[in-house]
Amino acid sequence: MSVGIVQEQSLTIETGLRLESGRILAPITLVYETYGTLNAARSNAILVTHAWTGNAHLAGKLAEDDPKPGWWDAIVGPGRLLDTDRYFVICSNVIGSCYGSTGPASINPRTGKRYNLSFPVITVRDMVRAQEFLIDHLGIDRLLTVLGGSMGGMQALEWATQLPERIASAVVLAATPRPSAQAIAMNAVARWAIFNDPTWKKGEYRKNPKDGLALARGIGHITFLSDESMTAKFDRRFSAKDGQFDFFGQFEVERYLSYNGYNFVDRFDANSFLYLAKALDLYDVAWGYESMEEVFSLVKAPLQFFAFTSDWLYPPYQTEEMVNVLQKIGNPVEYHLIPSAYGHDAFLLEHETFTPMVKALLERVGG
Amino acid sequence: MSVGIVQEQSLTIETGLRLESGRILAPITLVYETYGTLNAARSNAILVTHAWTGNAHLAGKLAEDDPKPGWWDAIVGPGRLLDTDRYFVICSNVIGSCYGSTGPASINPRTGKRYNLSFPVITVRDMVRAQEFLIDHLGIDRLLTVLGGSMGGMQALEWATQLPERIASAVVLAATPRPSAQAIAMNAVARWAIFNDPTWKKGEYRKNPKDGLALARGIGHITFLSDESMTAKFDRRFSAKDGQFDFFGQFEVERYLSYNGYNFVDRFDANSFLYLAKALDLYDVAWGYESMEEVFSLVKAPLQFFAFTSDWLYPPYQTEEMVNVLQKIGNPVEYHLIPSAYGHDAFLLEHETFTPMVKALLERVGG
Repeated sequence: MSVGIVQEQSLTIETGLRLESGRILAPITLVYETYGTLNAARSNAILVTHAWTGNAHLAGKLAEDDPKPGWWDAIVGPGRLLDTDRYFVICSNVIGSCYGSTGPASINPRTGKRYNLSFPVITVRDMVRAQEFLIDHLGIDRLLTVLGGSMGGMQALEWATQLPERIASAVVLAATPRPSAQAIAMNAVARWAIFNDPTWKKGEYRKNPKDGLALARGIGHITFLSDESMTAKFDRRFSAKDGQFDFFGQFEVERYLSYNGYNFVDRFDANSFLYLAKALDLYDVAWGYESMEEVFSLVKAPLQFFAFTSDWLYPPYQTEEMVNVLQKIGNPVEYHLIPSAYGHDAFLLEHETFTPMVKALLERVGG
Repeated sequence: MSVGIVQEQSLTIETGLRLESGRILAPITLVYETYGTLNAARSNAILVTHAWTGNAHLAGKLAEDDPKPGWWDAIVGPGRLLDTDRYFVICSNVIGSCYGSTGPASINPRTGKRYNLSFPVITVRDMVRAQEFLIDHLGIDRLLTVLGGSMGGMQALEWATQLPERIASAVVLAATPRPSAQAIAMNAVARWAIFNDPTWKKGEYRKNPKDGLALARGIGHITFLSDESMTAKFDRRFSAKDGQFDFFGQFEVERYLSYNGYNFVDRFDANSFLYLAKALDLYDVAWGYESMEEVFSLVKAPLQFFAFTSDWLYPPYQTEEMVNVLQKIGNPVEYHLIPSAYGHDAFLLEHETFTPMVKALLERVGG
């Protein structure tokens, strides 16, 4: 069942946050939504962390006539995986994003203008430190779990390693301890597409640089799918309205990337895209530590990992590297390799593949 | 041993060629090089076909002070795989390219101006029909073999299926019967990068649109490498001159793509890049036939295929599809899956992996 109509909330921390870079970002506003009720013991809270271009609107609708529910509605609500009859579910927009939390499109109070490229480079660790303020604000000592995929999985890893006392478990889907050179390369060409757009103006645009951002999204989109899923969806079909010998004639897959790319321009800020791409590329779970062994020795909670066979952005071997280290140092860890044709996006599209295992974990940690 | 100093030659066919699109391209000029001596029986000729951005300069140097030899020098020369003491080796620049053969940057004799986008869309089959003129001109009835990788492999497939009487064998490396949606998608975003460049001007530029073309090449470059080879070469190293918290700070892999992309602008015409990308995407060995079975039933010569394990542009399963059909219909076929970390580029970088098998094939077909 759906959670129904939900409301966006917001929290501002005037004193801000000291970032990994050493810079201070202040104030910080975090936009968030919650679903279900926090129990008297404040022991039933679950944090869901979003991916690159996600937001706080995880589930339900903001108005009766909303055409679509939140981005992961399928797993949140009465009787669903994150059962709002039992759990208090929280999702907040990360800093650096453009859905209400402080990011490059926010007004810098010291100048009265948008930060744009004066916004500091942020890391996934910074995002999680900001989330900690929210959990404090809600009066929660310890989260039952932190659950997220992709960049959301990186956030779950940061909770597990940097705030080990504050979680009873974490669920990490389609993530990586550190993106490989190939993943960085794909983000690099996406950035380059925006830099090439003359309307980007080193971030000082009035209107989103549409051609560059659409192309950047198109490039990203390829990494979210797989060879198999693209063949299943498009194969080599040619656009019915184009001739194969038209210079500008398009394959269906080409039209799809273009269509989705230009749609994205209406919903996402180009500078946020760049800052979050950078946070993804810089991500290293062992950032500031000697090794993965060292950082994972800080973990106190059981961790549950899911990787998807056709995910070539953050391939299973990268998750397995973490699992092996955790097993070696004796931390409780569970790993599920899910056969899927959907590539990186599988975590969003095939929730039924991990629902039983996550449910069992939640029961075990005291849900 | 190197073939030494070589000379570019050229052939013009005034009457031109009727293309797959139905359009006539006339005249056609083909630039080519030859190495070794054609024997009296004219039975020792080998055609090497080049890939996307290759050219006719296969081996040797054009001048004593050339810094580098031709693009596949390692396999051509006395004592090398294509032994010029025994074989007469030919390589010609494909139509549509920009190294002397007729392409979009050529002058259209009817207008006195560059074709640019008035150049017709061409196919790999058209390229091979143009090559047939050259083989006729050289007085060769039957080639001992046609050997090529990637788009060169597609050309070898066209010789095998469209001109079956004119080859005694073909060697197809890192090719595909038809690129998959994912491969098309990567070319689509590369095209898009050029289209986005305001200096491209729908092909009517005076100077190559550098930012767009460099980015397009950067995207292409990712598809030529592999996750494994990129990790081996760059891993997550950050540029030594940049700070990790600099907004424009780059990973080494990012600098490399940019450096190579901008170098490419000096050597390749943007419109040629687009026309050949289109020829690659449109490629289908069964173009005009009911099935791969039907088209492969035309083949008369033994075919030798090589695929490389880490090639994700034209993955081994695609070569295997052809091998299976040829086996099913009983045509002599040989298949070698080469373990390699080098991705699609492996065919150029690891010639020693296929040298013994190709040598044996040449002996067998009467070299």
